[in-house]
Amino acid sequence: MKLLSTLALACAAFALAAPAQAQFQKPEDAIKYRQSALSVMGTHFGRVGAMVNGRVPFDAKVAADNVDIVAAMAKLPWAGFGAGTEGGKAKPEIWKEQAKFKESSDNLQAETIKLVAAAKTGNLDTLKAAFGATAGTCKACHDAFQNK
Amino acid sequence: MKLLSTLALACAAFALAAPAQAQFQKPEDAIKYRQSALSVMGTHFGRVGAMVNGRVPFDAKVAADNVDIVAAMAKLPWAGFGAGTEGGKAKPEIWKEQAKFKESSDNLQAETIKLVAAAKTGNLDTLKAAFGATAGTCKACHDAFQNK
Repeated sequence: MKLLSTLALACAAFALAAPAQAQFQKPEDAIKYRQSALSVMGTHFGRVGAMVNGRVPFDAKVAADNVDIVAAMAKLPWAGFGAGTEGGKAKPEIWKEQAKFKESSDNLQAETIKLVAAAKTGNLDTLKAAFGATAGTCKACHDAFQNK
Repeated sequence: MKLLSTLALACAAFALAAPAQAQFQKPEDAIKYRQSALSVMGTHFGRVGAMVNGRVPFDAKVAADNVDIVAAMAKLPWAGFGAGTEGGKAKPEIWKEQAKFKESSDNLQAETIKLVAAAKTGNLDTLKAAFGATAGTCKACHDAFQNK
């Protein structure tokens, strides 16, 4: 009976881990993937930030192009946080509070959709507001789930 | 006179470097960016390769989703090879043979557009052919421009 429940637990763990295993051969691959995707997203978000903060002149076309890349990249990193991929700067809370982590990544993606719409208006103040809201979701997630 | 020509040279160098400087604060940022973008692209291209090579079952929807990401990522890395960003695994030839390097990156992007169309057909043999052609552009560029 004990053996059976151990087996059942092992199977459940395997089933949970399967998607991550199917996508990444090693945990390091998943870590590299999520860090790379977040880094590319951060670069393009930073370009929009430079305009929003007045460090570089506002160019609506350039802002919109960068925001499109941010929104596309915002979909990617989360597949790299599968079961058994602890490490990097990721706090263990990611795997302990999966619903909260999922909510955080969903929040970012929802804000980037609004950010794309804001950039399309070509209005800097509209972009500023959406940029701030998006940046807020980055910060909230980093505060909760990223080791400094 | 000598000072003037030195100044002119310095200005020319600055003008050449300006786009890269505007986009990346430090050469290391550009190197990290291009490596990250290439790595994300490689991950998704590898997933298609696993299906094409029969290591995982062919799923037309999954293949098409991954191929879309490959095509989006294929546009990005090249901005990270601006003037003054030598380093990483990049051969100096990238900056000495810029027309050839540009042609290589254009080839990849052209093949990824065909790859997206091939994936949309849902036919594995069509996908295989386009995957092979795309992989050929990766290899040609790596052979010419990447240190092993």
